[in-house]
Amino acid sequence: MIVVMEAGATEEQIQSVIDRLVALDFSVHRSTGVVHTVLGGVGPEAAVDPVDFKVLDGVKDCFPIMSPYKLASRHFKPGGTVVDFGKVQIGGNAVVVMAGPCSVESEAQIQASAEAVVRAGARFIRGGAFKPRSSPYSFQGLGEPGLKLLRKAADAHQLLVVSEVMDQTQISVMEDYVDLLQVGARNMQNFNLLRELGRSRRPVLLKRGISATIEELLLSAEYILSGGNYNLILCERGIRTFESYTRNTMDISAIPVVKKLSHLPIVADPSHGTGRRDQVIPMARAAVAAGADGLIVEVHPDPDRARSDGAQSLYPEQFAELMRQLALIAQAVARTV
Amino acid sequence: MIVVMEAGATEEQIQSVIDRLVALDFSVHRSTGVVHTVLGGVGPEAAVDPVDFKVLDGVKDCFPIMSPYKLASRHFKPGGTVVDFGKVQIGGNAVVVMAGPCSVESEAQIQASAEAVVRAGARFIRGGAFKPRSSPYSFQGLGEPGLKLLRKAADAHQLLVVSEVMDQTQISVMEDYVDLLQVGARNMQNFNLLRELGRSRRPVLLKRGISATIEELLLSAEYILSGGNYNLILCERGIRTFESYTRNTMDISAIPVVKKLSHLPIVADPSHGTGRRDQVIPMARAAVAAGADGLIVEVHPDPDRARSDGAQSLYPEQFAELMRQLALIAQAVARTV
Amino acid sequence: MIVVMEAGATEEQIQSVIDRLVALDFSVHRSTGVVHTVLGGVGPEAAVDPVDFKVLDGVKDCFPIMSPYKLASRHFKPGGTVVDFGKVQIGGNAVVVMAGPCSVESEAQIQASAEAVVRAGARFIRGGAFKPRSSPYSFQGLGEPGLKLLRKAADAHQLLVVSEVMDQTQISVMEDYVDLLQVGARNMQNFNLLRELGRSRRPVLLKRGISATIEELLLSAEYILSGGNYNLILCERGIRTFESYTRNTMDISAIPVVKKLSHLPIVADPSHGTGRRDQVIPMARAAVAAGADGLIVEVHPDPDRARSDGAQSLYPEQFAELMRQLALIAQAVARTV
Amino acid sequence: MIVVMEAGATEEQIQSVIDRLVALDFSVHRSTGVVHTVLGGVGPEAAVDPVDFKVLDGVKDCFPIMSPYKLASRHFKPGGTVVDFGKVQIGGNAVVVMAGPCSVESEAQIQASAEAVVRAGARFIRGGAFKPRSSPYSFQGLGEPGLKLLRKAADAHQLLVVSEVMDQTQISVMEDYVDLLQVGARNMQNFNLLRELGRSRRPVLLKRGISATIEELLLSAEYILSGGNYNLILCERGIRTFESYTRNTMDISAIPVVKKLSHLPIVADPSHGTGRRDQVIPMARAAVAAGADGLIVEVHPDPDRARSDGAQSLYPEQFAELMRQLALIAQAVARTV
Repeated sequence: MIVVMEAGATEEQIQSVIDRLVALDFSVHRSTGVVHTVLGGVGPEAAVDPVDFKVLDGVKDCFPIMSPYKLASRHFKPGGTVVDFGKVQIGGNAVVVMAGPCSVESEAQIQASAEAVVRAGARFIRGGAFKPRSSPYSFQGLGEPGLKLLRKAADAHQLLVVSEVMDQTQISVMEDYVDLLQVGARNMQNFNLLRELGRSRRPVLLKRGISATIEELLLSAEYILSGGNYNLILCERGIRTFESYTRNTMDISAIPVVKKLSHLPIVADPSHGTGRRDQVIPMARAAVAAGADGLIVEVHPDPDRARSDGAQSLYPEQFAELMRQLALIAQAVARTV
Repeated sequence: MIVVMEAGATEEQIQSVIDRLVALDFSVHRSTGVVHTVLGGVGPEAAVDPVDFKVLDGVKDCFPIMSPYKLASRHFKPGGTVVDFGKVQIGGNAVVVMAGPCSVESEAQIQASAEAVVRAGARFIRGGAFKPRSSPYSFQGLGEPGLKLLRKAADAHQLLVVSEVMDQTQISVMEDYVDLLQVGARNMQNFNLLRELGRSRRPVLLKRGISATIEELLLSAEYILSGGNYNLILCERGIRTFESYTRNTMDISAIPVVKKLSHLPIVADPSHGTGRRDQVIPMARAAVAAGADGLIVEVHPDPDRARSDGAQSLYPEQFAELMRQLALIAQAVARTV
Repeated sequence: MIVVMEAGATEEQIQSVIDRLVALDFSVHRSTGVVHTVLGGVGPEAAVDPVDFKVLDGVKDCFPIMSPYKLASRHFKPGGTVVDFGKVQIGGNAVVVMAGPCSVESEAQIQASAEAVVRAGARFIRGGAFKPRSSPYSFQGLGEPGLKLLRKAADAHQLLVVSEVMDQTQISVMEDYVDLLQVGARNMQNFNLLRELGRSRRPVLLKRGISATIEELLLSAEYILSGGNYNLILCERGIRTFESYTRNTMDISAIPVVKKLSHLPIVADPSHGTGRRDQVIPMARAAVAAGADGLIVEVHPDPDRARSDGAQSLYPEQFAELMRQLALIAQAVARTV
Repeated sequence: MIVVMEAGATEEQIQSVIDRLVALDFSVHRSTGVVHTVLGGVGPEAAVDPVDFKVLDGVKDCFPIMSPYKLASRHFKPGGTVVDFGKVQIGGNAVVVMAGPCSVESEAQIQASAEAVVRAGARFIRGGAFKPRSSPYSFQGLGEPGLKLLRKAADAHQLLVVSEVMDQTQISVMEDYVDLLQVGARNMQNFNLLRELGRSRRPVLLKRGISATIEELLLSAEYILSGGNYNLILCERGIRTFESYTRNTMDISAIPVVKKLSHLPIVADPSHGTGRRDQVIPMARAAVAAGADGLIVEVHPDPDRARSDGAQSLYPEQFAELMRQLALIAQAVARTV
């Protein structure tokens, strides 16, 4: 912890900060400059909030030295994490594509989806059975029967399954059907859910909240990792900004930043990242060009009749075209699809 | 639903939009202008997402006519809602102040808090027993024993109790101890929790998420109202912006906006809204001057030793001074404290 | 400058950072921790960008010690600045209100405006002659003839004049008519304009840009102060956020923050801060309750026919009512209007 | 213009809105629904601000039908604009790269820069002579002597020149040395500058402001186009968001959005978009993958000694590597570099 005193801070103010650091078990090194006195404290930083010092009299600023996360940091596993699903690995050389409808709606719909996405080269089928919806009047998902249909469609097409878990009471039922448990953006800081997922051994896909900093994403990852579940994949899916033409602003730069700060794989969701079908393809290409380990994309056999997210779902032929383009982009960054 | 076609949209594109509206049970009125054709659709708007139309070929823009929320709208109850706690009402003429520590830490601490806040004029004591914390390594609250201490301190000082419920599994235990169930900002879109709170009859304090629009806040309110629980109070507690000097940017203008759009009472939380003790007092005054129905403020008998949020907790004497200032501000807006 | 090395930084990386600091004339103090090595550099910080160090190999983070502004800091003039206009002072005990139409439109309009605002208690009349408009097709102002009408109306009603200067070529003509030169939000970082205003001795009202941090506002103030013009007043007028119900989000908390960081007076503009007439009055009250030294408010004798900003202009009777409310709020914070 | 009345709006309120529309020369079509009355107005929309109607009594919302810009819209020139520089075209099949240092510092520096960028395949050299700097104490550029050095270096290496013009008084001197006049992000709404550039026939590169919506960018483009200068190129260079790890958040999705809404070419600036050298290469790849017509990249022969923007300047060998990668990415989107 570094505390910078204001120009003109009194000796009493300085001493009071030192006393407080010492009381918190920090060793303090004092450096008296012409203008500013700087205090360096070595101690239990994780237990202290820098703002507690920023508001003290005579303090100009306070900076942490340690990262607030440890297990999620690149330093913890410099070589990077590969999450292994048997025939498929995420975090390795291949860019892995997960695709399918927003919601499971019917057996015919999910079978047609599976057929379309496997043919184009996807390795996972996505589809929601429990849907978080802004309005109580919107379609809320089929629940467990939806999961059954999803699993059946996946098995029939040799696909893996990714689907969203909305709270900790759903984890055990989800584990019966799902290969990769998705935590939605709105739940990125549902800490009870994260803690329970840390106790699971099923791989988890943790989506960045629309107003979460990258540091907060890594802290939420730390909840899961600290429970002992290392099968963790992060996902960039757009942040909220003032620009309203797209539903969110996809923060493509988060991809190389996460790669630098953490060992965890990161995939991108250009469907929620943009909210508009006509932006999904260019943003999917951009994500892979920036180094994403995979994509999760909404594809629907009949987007015009989708019960949710139709506007951002690709038509099957658009998805097939996207996969052809991705193969070339992947090559340009020395990867495969 | 209003659909504006692009300049130069073809007859085929226009017809295709009309067909789609009709298929969704809309009656369509077409208005052919020199530049733009405009389609007005009357039908089941709540079931349709305008973006589904925005992405169609030849469509320039699409606007809803209806509000997405109904029960939360001012129109539903023009006179405004007053939530009644017996001796205290929120939404009436009096500005109601809730105060206390971030977390319940010990019996001595919560008793001292209750003593300090009641003496200065607060009507509720606040205090967390289940704490949502960004880091898994931070203090997570005392749990149910904390609730017991909180209730005891409140009863000893004739205070009401407000405390945060983190997920739906905690509702029934919370109901045993708490008069007002607080939904934290991170849970504003935890829809399973909202739905269960709609089934409770205990009053709820719903905090705005740090990146939630006012419309989203009212949609979350709609979840609770549509379950039949009308004892609902909203809370502005700061939004996330680019400015980093304060932890959040308190959106004071949300107070008069909510008053205009909704019949629900709204209180303000200047502690989380600013994150800094030295900003709490001016922002508390500003919130009341802007028309807030109440405040929820962090006060700690010894903020320098608080286990959480010390930096934004007022010293008891600061709180007493704030209450004196609020009395004058309330008078200026023809209210009492 | 404090440089924190990454956990696992090599000795070579550390030495390379030290060498670079020394080459830039910094004295370096090295502190080797169990996890992180920290380097403290004392030297010409103002000339160095911390990001230059953040991107070096093995560097985790880099923090400045000094403020990037000096003349604008509270420390430079702890007692605070009062800008003196003879009969009126800004920054003293009285809250000073400036009011008038967005644009000068005609002699009748500006005379009626002056009449209305002086009667209610304003001390300055505002009115634009050179208008920055987002669209090239909007009314761009009357130019110098507008300034003449504005001066005439002010003199007839013993008011001072505040009006916007759009670029440095307009300064000398503005000085003939205007008591307070307003720099609009879009020009907060028009550095050529700021530099020229530093050479003027006419008081300047510097508005915060809609995406400017408080630090950037103070750096822009530094441009004017460093030219020798100390007659400077800052203005909060709303920042751009994701919330779109109001045109901008008025950052009321900027008022106490600026008061803490700087000696300069700060006023608030609730008209641009909200963009909606129905929000102006509560936000004006909130700004004064938070400690603003003054207000600048749009008032038009006939807002429904205003050539610009009609939606955010008060009717004269609304303004008179606002002034009555402000008198009470000012009293609550021990000031006068 | 579409005006949606509130549920429960009175006949008097409705009539008052109709009267006002008619007074503004709109023809009004009224549609009375079960809940909401909707008024469609056909008339001089460009002259009316929808907010003027939003604040009227009984009005729920108001939507424009027309785009506020015309000459900048895709509809105006469906085939797209190609800006022709003789041997180089921007907006055609080839992705054009502009590169060079932030500032011209010395003859040796700019000659070395030109040498490095031309060898790797750039077609333009960039370099600032007039520098907008947040702090008055930072290096402000060499001025006209810098332009001379820049032109000389460009001519010696068959490069075109792009450089920033800070205000309208500099246009004529810039025209003597520069092939493409850059308008910086801070000047995107310096309307006097835009208007004068509309009178020039020199091509202009207009950068998006850090808090400008895409619509505002196109309105600023409209200023230049409406003056008769059609040689216009847009540039995405990052927007300001809450994420602070990168200096700005590069809005890659703005590239396909601009392509859809406008006929103007768009290039990307990954250097300012990220502020960090280690993010420039992945974001440059992403921009081209998303469809950018070109890039403007900071490259310095010795970034560690750059007088400005060193942290985001590539080393010459990094730039050469980037150009190799871009050739592959361009191929994947059926373009060349």
